[in-house]
Amino acid sequence: MSEKNLQVLLARRPTGAPQESDFRLVETAVPEIGDGQFLVRSRYLSLDPYMRGRMNDAKSYAKPVELGAVMVGGAVGEVAASRHPKFKPGDKVVGAFGWQLYAASDGAGVSRIADPRVPLSAYLGVVGMPGVTAYIGLLDFGQPKAGETVVVSAASGAVGAVVGQIAKIRGCRAVGIAGGPDKCRYVVEELGLDACVDYKAGRLWEDLSQATPKGIDVYFDNVGGEILDIVLRRLNPFARIPLCGLISQYNAAEPYAMKNAGALLVNRVKLQGFIVTDHLPRWPAALADLAQWLSEGKIKYRETVAEGLRSAPSAFIGMLAGKNFGKQLVKLI
Amino acid sequence: MSEKNLQVLLARRPTGAPQESDFRLVETAVPEIGDGQFLVRSRYLSLDPYMRGRMNDAKSYAKPVELGAVMVGGAVGEVAASRHPKFKPGDKVVGAFGWQLYAASDGAGVSRIADPRVPLSAYLGVVGMPGVTAYIGLLDFGQPKAGETVVVSAASGAVGAVVGQIAKIRGCRAVGIAGGPDKCRYVVEELGLDACVDYKAGRLWEDLSQATPKGIDVYFDNVGGEILDIVLRRLNPFARIPLCGLISQYNAAEPYAMKNAGALLVNRVKLQGFIVTDHLPRWPAALADLAQWLSEGKIKYRETVAEGLRSAPSAFIGMLAGKNFGKQLVKLI
Repeated sequence: MSEKNLQVLLARRPTGAPQESDFRLVETAVPEIGDGQFLVRSRYLSLDPYMRGRMNDAKSYAKPVELGAVMVGGAVGEVAASRHPKFKPGDKVVGAFGWQLYAASDGAGVSRIADPRVPLSAYLGVVGMPGVTAYIGLLDFGQPKAGETVVVSAASGAVGAVVGQIAKIRGCRAVGIAGGPDKCRYVVEELGLDACVDYKAGRLWEDLSQATPKGIDVYFDNVGGEILDIVLRRLNPFARIPLCGLISQYNAAEPYAMKNAGALLVNRVKLQGFIVTDHLPRWPAALADLAQWLSEGKIKYRETVAEGLRSAPSAFIGMLAGKNFGKQLVKLI
Repeated sequence: MSEKNLQVLLARRPTGAPQESDFRLVETAVPEIGDGQFLVRSRYLSLDPYMRGRMNDAKSYAKPVELGAVMVGGAVGEVAASRHPKFKPGDKVVGAFGWQLYAASDGAGVSRIADPRVPLSAYLGVVGMPGVTAYIGLLDFGQPKAGETVVVSAASGAVGAVVGQIAKIRGCRAVGIAGGPDKCRYVVEELGLDACVDYKAGRLWEDLSQATPKGIDVYFDNVGGEILDIVLRRLNPFARIPLCGLISQYNAAEPYAMKNAGALLVNRVKLQGFIVTDHLPRWPAALADLAQWLSEGKIKYRETVAEGLRSAPSAFIGMLAGKNFGKQLVKLI
């Protein structure tokens, strides 16, 4: 290997919104591989909201990234060299290879990519962690029945877009919440949801009420905060809330103060916080269904692709502010 | 019947805490019974926090009490006269007979009381709606495992006292939250819980942390508001919250603003609002277990008994302020 590795390290823990100076780009040697290891050259890096949590030194479901360590992240790429019995050069793989061009791996948590129907980058989106998150959250915890009304926030995002389309596949009325008229138009016209409410228009309660004439049976929440608080007022009895993300809160100095928790009792709501990596046994079935739906054109997706690892910090910062449209990726070659 | 009926009517919908003038005591004729009906002379009236919700003209899980109508409520009594094939004079019965001395009934929702091991008034408490609420909420929704830590608020109350004792029966560490040193002493010394935190002492976070060295796996919530918000910070991963009541909020002019909802996601919490009357198929098993535990001395209880129907409004107002100790009853004879 004559090429050098490039890495993005966590340089400083952000307060509020991350800044580019919280990251540091470094050039290092391509890692040596030992027996039982292989070397991956990543092609696409996934940027996801959960990474903001890993930048904090706070107790959470996963350990924080250490200061000076490579930022965590999923990526797809190719095996460039191997001393591992099950992976050979040229194999396409997906795994938690981090914000870097090259990674050494022992195969833990790495999957070979082999479905010719699925584009490489989709393994980071629809047929990857975000898609499985949507699938498990909606079907296992939301348990939507045909004819029910499903509402999803961040509806044009990597997770939300899949949630809304699965809701349609299952015969539900599907209503998105997204930021701005372009995203809302996309959610209805491209993804095929029944309606989409633009939360930036400042009439969330009125617009949501109009879009959910029979109330809300399932609210798949990616954002938390004020939007969750308002949705609580539209819930039907026995509603379910798969609580998947709180992107509105990740950069907030003060948490939003929820006022409508009483609706959880009055409507006998089941709210379930979940993390997709707690449910590994469900992944194979989810990935198989998602790949099938993708190949049949039942699930569409959009990507925002930043070029080059150097652009990862600014793309990540933009994603947390909702500037991406669909799945946020970084192309590494 | 030469006696008159006495009834307490809803005279006015309260704003905030109810006042005695929101109720009206009236003397009326004892109701006539038709074919298929029987007349009940109630002996004990149950006072329960849910009744505060019925005084509001708001959409909830049950219809509000109409202005001028008899206040709703469970009671135990005896059949005084019958033109019903299945109930005969002298039968002991429990049902939703309301805040009055006499009620006519067609038998819907009425159960005959026949277990010699169970005192009459206990059918309104441990072996009645509050006990079944505790049983279903803790066992079906809380799903405590031996060795886990269960916390219950309003721990000396009609529901909370049963929750804590069932948690002990199931081999859990059981910690109560109650108001004042007397109630806390009772919870530990009489009910046998492992610890009790006095929320009125003003150190809820510190005292709760000390009482739950391994965190909290199940929080059975009867109160909502600030106590719920603080408990959220002590939850363990995969904690369960059966959400049973919000007594701290029933009289509040403004709902308490919850700040720690993020803990629901981080800890993958399952929160389930529930109303015991949604789960009628579970009642027989619950009542059988509760009667058995009561007869074995595994479940103890305390009652606060107000004398005479006239005292019901003030006893109810006091209960909402936590002035009762254990199950609040009104003795009607």
